[in-house]
Amino acid sequence: MVGQRLVKLLSHHEYFELAVVAASPSSAGKKYREAAHWYIEGSMPEKAAELRVVETTVEAVKREGGVDVAFSALPADVALKVEAEFAKEGVPVVSDASSYRMEPDVPILVAEVNPEHLGVVKLQSKRGWKSFIVTNPNCTTTVLVMALKPIIDEFGVKKVLVSTMQAVSGAGWSGVPSMAILDNVIPYIAKEEEKVQAESLKILGTFTGDSIKPAEFKVSASCHRVHVLDGHTEAVFVELKRGASAQEVAEVLRKFKGKPQELKLPTAPPQPIVVKDEPDRPQPRFDRYEGGGMAVVVGRIREDPALDNGIKFVVLGHNTIRGAAGNAVLNAELMVKEGVI
Amino acid sequence: MVGQRLVKLLSHHEYFELAVVAASPSSAGKKYREAAHWYIEGSMPEKAAELRVVETTVEAVKREGGVDVAFSALPADVALKVEAEFAKEGVPVVSDASSYRMEPDVPILVAEVNPEHLGVVKLQSKRGWKSFIVTNPNCTTTVLVMALKPIIDEFGVKKVLVSTMQAVSGAGWSGVPSMAILDNVIPYIAKEEEKVQAESLKILGTFTGDSIKPAEFKVSASCHRVHVLDGHTEAVFVELKRGASAQEVAEVLRKFKGKPQELKLPTAPPQPIVVKDEPDRPQPRFDRYEGGGMAVVVGRIREDPALDNGIKFVVLGHNTIRGAAGNAVLNAELMVKEGVI
Amino acid sequence: MVGQRLVKLLSHHEYFELAVVAASPSSAGKKYREAAHWYIEGSMPEKAAELRVVETTVEAVKREGGVDVAFSALPADVALKVEAEFAKEGVPVVSDASSYRMEPDVPILVAEVNPEHLGVVKLQSKRGWKSFIVTNPNCTTTVLVMALKPIIDEFGVKKVLVSTMQAVSGAGWSGVPSMAILDNVIPYIAKEEEKVQAESLKILGTFTGDSIKPAEFKVSASCHRVHVLDGHTEAVFVELKRGASAQEVAEVLRKFKGKPQELKLPTAPPQPIVVKDEPDRPQPRFDRYEGGGMAVVVGRIREDPALDNGIKFVVLGHNTIRGAAGNAVLNAELMVKEGVI
Amino acid sequence: MVGQRLVKLLSHHEYFELAVVAASPSSAGKKYREAAHWYIEGSMPEKAAELRVVETTVEAVKREGGVDVAFSALPADVALKVEAEFAKEGVPVVSDASSYRMEPDVPILVAEVNPEHLGVVKLQSKRGWKSFIVTNPNCTTTVLVMALKPIIDEFGVKKVLVSTMQAVSGAGWSGVPSMAILDNVIPYIAKEEEKVQAESLKILGTFTGDSIKPAEFKVSASCHRVHVLDGHTEAVFVELKRGASAQEVAEVLRKFKGKPQELKLPTAPPQPIVVKDEPDRPQPRFDRYEGGGMAVVVGRIREDPALDNGIKFVVLGHNTIRGAAGNAVLNAELMVKEGVI
Repeated sequence: MVGQRLVKLLSHHEYFELAVVAASPSSAGKKYREAAHWYIEGSMPEKAAELRVVETTVEAVKREGGVDVAFSALPADVALKVEAEFAKEGVPVVSDASSYRMEPDVPILVAEVNPEHLGVVKLQSKRGWKSFIVTNPNCTTTVLVMALKPIIDEFGVKKVLVSTMQAVSGAGWSGVPSMAILDNVIPYIAKEEEKVQAESLKILGTFTGDSIKPAEFKVSASCHRVHVLDGHTEAVFVELKRGASAQEVAEVLRKFKGKPQELKLPTAPPQPIVVKDEPDRPQPRFDRYEGGGMAVVVGRIREDPALDNGIKFVVLGHNTIRGAAGNAVLNAELMVKEGVI
Repeated sequence: MVGQRLVKLLSHHEYFELAVVAASPSSAGKKYREAAHWYIEGSMPEKAAELRVVETTVEAVKREGGVDVAFSALPADVALKVEAEFAKEGVPVVSDASSYRMEPDVPILVAEVNPEHLGVVKLQSKRGWKSFIVTNPNCTTTVLVMALKPIIDEFGVKKVLVSTMQAVSGAGWSGVPSMAILDNVIPYIAKEEEKVQAESLKILGTFTGDSIKPAEFKVSASCHRVHVLDGHTEAVFVELKRGASAQEVAEVLRKFKGKPQELKLPTAPPQPIVVKDEPDRPQPRFDRYEGGGMAVVVGRIREDPALDNGIKFVVLGHNTIRGAAGNAVLNAELMVKEGVI
Repeated sequence: MVGQRLVKLLSHHEYFELAVVAASPSSAGKKYREAAHWYIEGSMPEKAAELRVVETTVEAVKREGGVDVAFSALPADVALKVEAEFAKEGVPVVSDASSYRMEPDVPILVAEVNPEHLGVVKLQSKRGWKSFIVTNPNCTTTVLVMALKPIIDEFGVKKVLVSTMQAVSGAGWSGVPSMAILDNVIPYIAKEEEKVQAESLKILGTFTGDSIKPAEFKVSASCHRVHVLDGHTEAVFVELKRGASAQEVAEVLRKFKGKPQELKLPTAPPQPIVVKDEPDRPQPRFDRYEGGGMAVVVGRIREDPALDNGIKFVVLGHNTIRGAAGNAVLNAELMVKEGVI
Repeated sequence: MVGQRLVKLLSHHEYFELAVVAASPSSAGKKYREAAHWYIEGSMPEKAAELRVVETTVEAVKREGGVDVAFSALPADVALKVEAEFAKEGVPVVSDASSYRMEPDVPILVAEVNPEHLGVVKLQSKRGWKSFIVTNPNCTTTVLVMALKPIIDEFGVKKVLVSTMQAVSGAGWSGVPSMAILDNVIPYIAKEEEKVQAESLKILGTFTGDSIKPAEFKVSASCHRVHVLDGHTEAVFVELKRGASAQEVAEVLRKFKGKPQELKLPTAPPQPIVVKDEPDRPQPRFDRYEGGGMAVVVGRIREDPALDNGIKFVVLGHNTIRGAAGNAVLNAELMVKEGVI
């Protein structure tokens, strides 16, 4: 799903040209049109359809003329090896895989949240790599940290508890059988809670110049799969350092802009956080395409009676756009503008 | 939905005989067979089918020969008036409506959790009533307090945060249009969070002999509707007074028995709390009928990294059985055994 | 649902300007923004949002400055009275209601299929009306007759048997409770089969100059509701007069163009019938927006072993666009170009 | 899914004792409890849970003490080889696989419909087999032929056109991804239509003593997957030889009994065909468990305006019980009573 979103986003891009499509050996050699069963809205972009799929190796990609930047939506175990090869050979990698996220010299980048973490990539030269890897967070984490960032900056945060209702597309096309989820909730997604807890602290941490110091608040996640195609909905409970009313929080979220908005990056949503006043929003089917799927949508902001200086709200984001492919493209756009690639 | 569950549960009951069915004027006069579109599994019990529906008034019920106890699944506004009339005229009312729940002289009863609160009904005589009203909690609350009770008794609880994924049957047959929930989550259920927060403190409070002193921990709820027919799933985060491992909590939940089990009440589940060890349970489609729909099912018990002495888990219960009709019938059974009716 | 689709289609239209929005007395007086809960993709068009809703009477509409043509998505009983009033007072009505469809002087118009039937409206002057009513077919019928038209023209048709799998939006926002359709099929839609059977013969009949002679083939429908938001899928079995291979039928469908394509009407899909070669298409989620929701999509064309000169295929169309609002707008566009309004 | 249904049906059976469970090498050696992820309602039968799974070979099964009859729910390619080995070695096979269905010496057995076809198994001795194979039809076919049998016997049938709405369980646990079917219909199931068309003629054909002469009416199927867990719904159009009213057809279906009812076989539903009078039944969620999932449910019987002497109706059956495991068990029961095993 993420690979197809990447193809779609890169097919008519202001900065990038989709030059090579690489996939597993079983697809290599075919045209992308034949290799891929197109799953997302709209038809397969014509130019991409005509590309010949190559194997996922530096050599194969070079034979097609090479690339200036590689976008990776590889499975974690494959990514571990392949992404390192690309970085070593001088091809910067913008990755949606989890393999390198928690490495100290690799940033987990959300362009509105921690653009300064990009600086840490210089440390990767110590690995003997000519270039570097930049990663996306896990999709659930991206949505969460987008909403937390302005709150942390304005009020400070001590504790975050988040309970998710995640879409089936997060598990890939065949990840969740209809027999498993029809008339059901699956209250478990392997490794998801650990990722949310660790990644959010790193992303919201401080880049000291030679390392990233994780943020010091506490995070707990409970992750659940629900019967929705796209869009992760997250119920968030936050203990603030400094008390705030629901209205103050809404205002801070509404006025938030990040570097992508400042730099007018092509994939940046005009409003990174859309705040809804209706009592029953955000809803995945109606709100997941806000900002072209790149905004997160917050609603139901209210004071929390259980936490000290507590606030609770619901946040929604499109898991394969903002939570994956779109975030990668936005990161790459930032890297272009910052002169890193 | 709740009315039909009541009819089903009372149709072949050891203590009770379904004597009269009362409904709105539009149904009055018809046989139950014609008046009700039977929505739940199995067919309409034959004897109930033959009953003639009467209007929901004391007089109409008396004309049919009267009843020893009235089960009410009336809308809140109707219940407010009708339940009082029955109680006044000497008919004890076991109610699923919310109208009287928060009245100081009315218990919200979950037979395993607070059977001693039954004592408060004697105060209702001050209203000039010959009999009294006993209420059910809101369905979400019932499921929650069942799981909390043994934890509170063993470890003490300071804070509870709960995020729910609730079934559409909770809103009644026509409550949630398919257009609203297909491929969607609705992160709002009117008045639900307020009910959960207030009712759980009352239920878990202390009956002092002439009033119910609410429990002193803090509760926060975030309530969401998901695409499931029956079974409310709740992600619960708890701050304990005394620290406990996940295993200790599991054990305490597993060995819990209440008064209904002790008294062997006919509708009591043998195991009021079923604890699942599989990492991906409870799931509504597979677990909602545990204990005939009268048990709650707990899984994913784990330590919580954000709260002090924190524990988190997922609990599931059948919202129209344990959360409504079944709880009412169990309450009535307790009342019979205790000699209250 | 149909009303909102009309608002959307008319909000930025080349020929029409949305001048007045009329609704039931409960909405009258409010801004459209407040009166309507916007249910369809994208946001409510800004200009429509600012319109003040009036009551559905000729007088109320005149007070707002009047209109040159009225689009009606009224309930059948209301339409019966109100549409006649508009037509009588000189306002042509383009209607999605069923009330006048089977009247001998009223055309059921599908612009690609029977544009010449527009001629019958002149007979309505005998009713003492200054203007006239033109109707849409039932949504299921529209999809069916689109696919049948080129087949009838090329090969002739003796019998049509159609089994439908219809979307819940066809019943309106609240028409199908989630409790009714989740994990279910409802094999019945009131009056639907009768409509399909009668309307398709009228639409595919011949306008003789002073009446419409119904087509002479036989039609049988079996209509079923399935768990889909938008898009009616229809399995069609056809006995041809002159035998044809699946390939010949595919070709005839593919090359079909109607008057809207010839006249380049703004809402006309470039290709009114899209033929899919993939073995598992059309599918509502992936194909309902072909031609902006105005094309029908045909697939699985194969020879039929049970009927003489038999052909079977599957056809899909968007029920609230091609099957309702879009068809009405296209009809009105045709009427403008033909000088009828 | 079918294997688990078999385990369930055989675990407390009057004639059979579940002696050995065989599966693929990856499961062999484990206890059934560990090997199988139990997917169906209720818990795994305790005795089955304790069985040690063996490989699917005659030798492995013999090492466990052997069996008197083997029930097979193997994939078609595996069944082709394995079932022959069992039959050759003297173990009668009751199979749900498609591999041998169309072999001239193998019956496709539906105990109410063609019990006399059992006679054809004697021809299998010519293969050099000590025992024989008896097969189930494809699930869609079983449901169809049950409803057709009494109609053929009473009125004669010339043509049958059937359009199906099939449950996802028919494709196995992982067969239909939720991404594929949520908010969708898939109008294609590989090889299904061919199976329905060929198998129904064989089943409804005549056993001449040394072969099965296929029935002579014509059949056409259009098969579609819908968003339902269990229960295939089929819209059937029938051209009768002798005209009949809907009422007459209903009566004939209602009074139908087959050999299993006559012999009072343990798995036989008391009423093999349940006829519903409500206008909107049968519905899979409400009717699939009629007769313990062994009855088919017919509704909406009405005259058909397109076919000569036409009748149309809707029939529903539980695809993994009546359409698979239950049919196999019933077949085996018949074989026991007939002295064949």
